[in-house]
Amino acid sequence: MLCPVQARSSILERSRALNTNRAEAFSDGVFAIAATLLVLELKVPHVEPGGLADALLQRWPSYATYVVSFLTIGIIWVNHHAVMDRINYVNRPLLFLNLVFLMAVAAIPFPTALLADYLQAGHDERLASAVYGVTMSLMGIAFGLIWAYAVLSDDLLHDKIDPDRARRSLLIFTVGSPLYVLAIGVSLLSAELALVIYALLAFFYLFDVLPPLEVREGKHG
Amino acid sequence: MLCPVQARSSILERSRALNTNRAEAFSDGVFAIAATLLVLELKVPHVEPGGLADALLQRWPSYATYVVSFLTIGIIWVNHHAVMDRINYVNRPLLFLNLVFLMAVAAIPFPTALLADYLQAGHDERLASAVYGVTMSLMGIAFGLIWAYAVLSDDLLHDKIDPDRARRSLLIFTVGSPLYVLAIGVSLLSAELALVIYALLAFFYLFDVLPPLEVREGKHG
Amino acid sequence: MLCPVQARSSILERSRALNTNRAEAFSDGVFAIAATLLVLELKVPHVEPGGLADALLQRWPSYATYVVSFLTIGIIWVNHHAVMDRINYVNRPLLFLNLVFLMAVAAIPFPTALLADYLQAGHDERLASAVYGVTMSLMGIAFGLIWAYAVLSDDLLHDKIDPDRARRSLLIFTVGSPLYVLAIGVSLLSAELALVIYALLAFFYLFDVLPPLEVREGKHG
Amino acid sequence: MLCPVQARSSILERSRALNTNRAEAFSDGVFAIAATLLVLELKVPHVEPGGLADALLQRWPSYATYVVSFLTIGIIWVNHHAVMDRINYVNRPLLFLNLVFLMAVAAIPFPTALLADYLQAGHDERLASAVYGVTMSLMGIAFGLIWAYAVLSDDLLHDKIDPDRARRSLLIFTVGSPLYVLAIGVSLLSAELALVIYALLAFFYLFDVLPPLEVREGKHG
Repeated sequence: MLCPVQARSSILERSRALNTNRAEAFSDGVFAIAATLLVLELKVPHVEPGGLADALLQRWPSYATYVVSFLTIGIIWVNHHAVMDRINYVNRPLLFLNLVFLMAVAAIPFPTALLADYLQAGHDERLASAVYGVTMSLMGIAFGLIWAYAVLSDDLLHDKIDPDRARRSLLIFTVGSPLYVLAIGVSLLSAELALVIYALLAFFYLFDVLPPLEVREGKHG
Repeated sequence: MLCPVQARSSILERSRALNTNRAEAFSDGVFAIAATLLVLELKVPHVEPGGLADALLQRWPSYATYVVSFLTIGIIWVNHHAVMDRINYVNRPLLFLNLVFLMAVAAIPFPTALLADYLQAGHDERLASAVYGVTMSLMGIAFGLIWAYAVLSDDLLHDKIDPDRARRSLLIFTVGSPLYVLAIGVSLLSAELALVIYALLAFFYLFDVLPPLEVREGKHG
Repeated sequence: MLCPVQARSSILERSRALNTNRAEAFSDGVFAIAATLLVLELKVPHVEPGGLADALLQRWPSYATYVVSFLTIGIIWVNHHAVMDRINYVNRPLLFLNLVFLMAVAAIPFPTALLADYLQAGHDERLASAVYGVTMSLMGIAFGLIWAYAVLSDDLLHDKIDPDRARRSLLIFTVGSPLYVLAIGVSLLSAELALVIYALLAFFYLFDVLPPLEVREGKHG
Repeated sequence: MLCPVQARSSILERSRALNTNRAEAFSDGVFAIAATLLVLELKVPHVEPGGLADALLQRWPSYATYVVSFLTIGIIWVNHHAVMDRINYVNRPLLFLNLVFLMAVAAIPFPTALLADYLQAGHDERLASAVYGVTMSLMGIAFGLIWAYAVLSDDLLHDKIDPDRARRSLLIFTVGSPLYVLAIGVSLLSAELALVIYALLAFFYLFDVLPPLEVREGKHG
């Protein structure tokens, strides 16, 4: 529809490609909105004259969790596109897995607010940190399932991806999920230590662990 | 505008195609925002030290309705694209029908919050469930009208769709609306039973009931 | 960037076309978000057991203004695309006019909430209605300026548009602004009568008053 | 993926181009949402009969900061696209810089609300103005780093850009950041004077200071 030259390819391919683009457009919307809604947790304090500086400083956990959650959602977005670039088309089961994944991403502002409020309150912060870990674990598991489903299918994986390298990438791509689950347990001992794990996991996902798109012999390129 | 090759097609086709893309872009935005705004209903409880676990457990209806409404909006989105893929272009009546449809979709966070709050309060939950059903019925009726208008028109239906199969799909595509209306009545007897119907309808719409895009003889492909 | 074939056209055209697409993408985002944020004005009432029906009925102005504002924003969106389809490219002055226009569109949820709340309160509703009218007038004036700027420029208007018909369309396209200004005055007499004018203006803008894209002799098509 | 003709270019180029488009789509979403969320700061006052006019007039800082922040975000958006148009592709470091930049943009509604509330309260407005300046400084520094990273890299800068002109543009493009930092200092003397600087900086960025895309000899065009 965007480009009539596509009419040369089969109808099926065209329909499939469109599906992929739209799954990405909807996902991009959810990512952008979830990240931007985080600002609503930054509440304006209402204080007596001269009290604003103290009130703002006291709310440092709000700013810290804003930064961590915004960058985390941003990094997940980068990796989501890296996965989508390596998939030929999106079928109904994959769309549904993607919805479950986005449901966890869209929920991130809630545990973020919970963690900020209870770090500031100075009590129940370990439970709040565990709830954050549960949300991130669900996100990580759904994300791992998306990549595993694509790699293990017959035709979803992009032609330019070496299937063997794709299968080997599964281990490192999905290693985040058990670590997030581990962080839930750590949360119950120390919210601060769990926060360090969350930050390290976000840092780890800065790096691209997926196989590259490459020109292979005897194939389309 | 995206692709000069399109200049080969008639101006009219180009203008029409653009209309379709933009109706989808706007619709995608509304879907993504409505789904992501659901998280605002997940409110951070403010409790005495040690009271967070109880407070969070007590709010299970918020999490349950978040999941049901997010997945429902996601599934409607999948089906909306399935319909749009089968339409040649969007004229003003169809744009207006689409607006009415999106108005119902964008309203979903309200009955979702209403239902969550009154399930938790333990009273008036049947009326809240009926309001949820009314919103979903309006959405279903507007969605059915969009497909019916396209199928019964002279030139809106995509060339690759068999008109007979399209007409036969009308019955099963629009069967959801009377069932949502039925769920309004059931709500007045039992909110829980109505919830089961809402969940089953979401599950039913996971399946694609529309006719496929197919290459037919003697036509463009 | 989307389509290498574009490299055939001059760099300048490409850069201009991209600008147009992006102005539309940003505008679509603002429209979709402004429309969807209207739902946040639909507040869940918290009542004693058995009191929900009355509480919901009492809030009819919220539902009425949700419907009017959602459809109004939707119709403005349809007309915004009709204007953008008739413009070759977007230069900095036009981008700035578009920003001022979007600033008024994005503000619509505020006068909508104001009007709903004071219609329900049963006092100061005439002032609230006037504030609604001021917002819509600003939107209408900025929208009229966008079309006037494009029509009266040397090269912004699309090649396929008859410049004479475009100039004649200015009168009917901008007639809405003085009527919105009139509605501000009417608001001070009767909020209800002003509401009728707002609804009639939304209905009027359902129709396309812009000149069509047509193939003219001796030009690109 | 949008256009099979691209298959003629190398896989690498295609992958890179897609990255650029998606970085822009995500950024557009964040810009549109941050701008539109500003309306949530426009709160409906609840007053005794006849008190609405006074209540609305008293809230003039909310309207003033809405206008300044909406136009500021809009102007940043225009300049962000001007930068992106001059970049070949987006690599991981640039994506990360862009995320940090967007994190500052998405935060703008918070200092905007803070400034509006404390200008209205008539105390602590100088600290609130400084917080606004800190947010804008972070935005400006991240934005300057994006352009500097692209200009000083080997292959990120668009082929149609003269590298010498690009390097010379760095000074004027990044001059805003020290001025925003200066405004933080001025805020501590006078919030009003700082506001004038913020408005002047927004006005300054209305103008395009980047080198144009031009056809140079011996290169692709």
